[in-house]
Amino acid sequence: MSLDNPSVKPHDRLAAALTDDMNAVNALIRDRMASRHAPRIPEVTAHLVEAGGKRLRPMLTLAAARMCGYQGDDHVKLAATVEFIHTATLLHDDVVDESKQRRGRPTANLLWDNKSSVLVGDYLFARSFQLMVETEDLRALNILSNAAATIAEGEVLQLSAAQDLATTEDIYLQVVRGKTAALFSAATEVGGVISRVPEAQIQALFDYGDALGISFQIVDDLLDYQGDTKATGKNVGDDFRERKLTLPVIKAVAAADDDERAFWKRTIEKGDQQDGDLEHAIALLHKHGTLEATRQDALAWAEKAKTAMAHLPESDFRSMLTDLADYVVARIS
Amino acid sequence: MSLDNPSVKPHDRLAAALTDDMNAVNALIRDRMASRHAPRIPEVTAHLVEAGGKRLRPMLTLAAARMCGYQGDDHVKLAATVEFIHTATLLHDDVVDESKQRRGRPTANLLWDNKSSVLVGDYLFARSFQLMVETEDLRALNILSNAAATIAEGEVLQLSAAQDLATTEDIYLQVVRGKTAALFSAATEVGGVISRVPEAQIQALFDYGDALGISFQIVDDLLDYQGDTKATGKNVGDDFRERKLTLPVIKAVAAADDDERAFWKRTIEKGDQQDGDLEHAIALLHKHGTLEATRQDALAWAEKAKTAMAHLPESDFRSMLTDLADYVVARIS
Repeated sequence: MSLDNPSVKPHDRLAAALTDDMNAVNALIRDRMASRHAPRIPEVTAHLVEAGGKRLRPMLTLAAARMCGYQGDDHVKLAATVEFIHTATLLHDDVVDESKQRRGRPTANLLWDNKSSVLVGDYLFARSFQLMVETEDLRALNILSNAAATIAEGEVLQLSAAQDLATTEDIYLQVVRGKTAALFSAATEVGGVISRVPEAQIQALFDYGDALGISFQIVDDLLDYQGDTKATGKNVGDDFRERKLTLPVIKAVAAADDDERAFWKRTIEKGDQQDGDLEHAIALLHKHGTLEATRQDALAWAEKAKTAMAHLPESDFRSMLTDLADYVVARIS
Repeated sequence: MSLDNPSVKPHDRLAAALTDDMNAVNALIRDRMASRHAPRIPEVTAHLVEAGGKRLRPMLTLAAARMCGYQGDDHVKLAATVEFIHTATLLHDDVVDESKQRRGRPTANLLWDNKSSVLVGDYLFARSFQLMVETEDLRALNILSNAAATIAEGEVLQLSAAQDLATTEDIYLQVVRGKTAALFSAATEVGGVISRVPEAQIQALFDYGDALGISFQIVDDLLDYQGDTKATGKNVGDDFRERKLTLPVIKAVAAADDDERAFWKRTIEKGDQQDGDLEHAIALLHKHGTLEATRQDALAWAEKAKTAMAHLPESDFRSMLTDLADYVVARIS
């Protein structure tokens, strides 16, 4: 396992193995984010696209296609499609969450305004559809347009689930599939689809992306309560302050006695938060062992991702993707 | 001409001739705006979709297809696609413009919040792409995804052109194509494309939708300065107060002397508006005859739309669409 040697992360091994493909994706992204008429569009997009994100999602498409022996050019278009959808959702997310920082830099809604973020996001959505239509692969179009709908549905669901103590682990999973896993699974699945591999392998690629995405999001939600700000770039307690019902809290609410329930009702549902509340919330998560239980859930989903990979023929890409599942949970292992 | 008998408007004749098709479109819209997980989505969508809009855009697709002798079911899917794209842009427009009223009712961003409008708009965009993918018609997909990109680009362009006295009539036309004409022309063009009529007829359908949309928007912008609030449902001067550079003002700025230029600079660029400024602005429009010149432009575009229709074989639908071009400008004739 690459984890034995933390100097060569599976993400970096993937990037090295996909250098030419990723260069082609980056060139395509730069080309398609241009707008002859509206210079605001490439300005806003570049702020996000060139902010040094890890390009994990497009790499998943490229790796899946290469693993399946794909020889054409459509994987580059679909990888750029996936990155455009991701970038569009980030722009809109930051408006909806009223975020001020992303990846350590001011958000576009702060640097420009909400209007620009909404409209440039719409432009990138439209560009992503143009790009995928160019592949003329109806099955890939179907998968990616379904993913876009699932993403938006998940975001709306999160809006109504937020601040509602009745949110169950099932609803949480739907939200997580929407906000994260749907694009991961679409990214890997289309790699198999354009390669015309057997259905069982396409299913395995979907299952891998789905489980990887869920694991990825659970880790993120866990680190929000126990992360090291320096390592994660996130502030501990952001989700608490934003009254988001993530897995550690959902599990704690389910185990709460009357006093604890009143605490969650006040802080999350009513949003009446005082000094010391975050510390008390974390103490309750520890009391009921929900951070550990959440961690176990993340590990189980990473394990599911690895199991799915086992249905695909052995290859360097398969081993890198398998290691990637370990890497996603390495921060909490 | 139907205008001789104002009791039978071409829009109503179209609606009567397309009753079955429109019922199918409405049923499809209701079906696809549902969300099992997020009830907020159909609530917000229904507020807009069922607000009694004229459904002009989907009717254009249906009429174009029927005029071309189309026999399948895809025209219904594409018409619903067009309406979903339109509804999504309305939701986002109202957020961007911070609007409080649409069609005489409170906007969704006011009734719910900006977050819901952004995310439900995204959901409808995604649903529109799912619907069009179902037709498996790659050329229609291409046209509609291009239209979506042109719409978003036009909206961003409008953002940067707003409040900028350097905005030319060319830029205005690009904005108008984006915000209105691109969806009109895509709506009519795809009706011809799925009917597999000769290229010259498809081009004529595109030209008709393009010219009709431009005419439609110029009329709207003209009425903002000389409309009857009761008849239009708009307040005279909204565009002035929002510092939008529409055609009557662009023409007046081009003809302005130094004093007038200072006036436009203060009121539109700097947004420093006082009592009596709207009246003075309207006086300047009259002084330079720009309301009349704008009116002539709208009439010329309506004429172009009618000329385009002449390239199509004679039929009842052709005569209704031709009359529709007259009807669009009837409010200013």
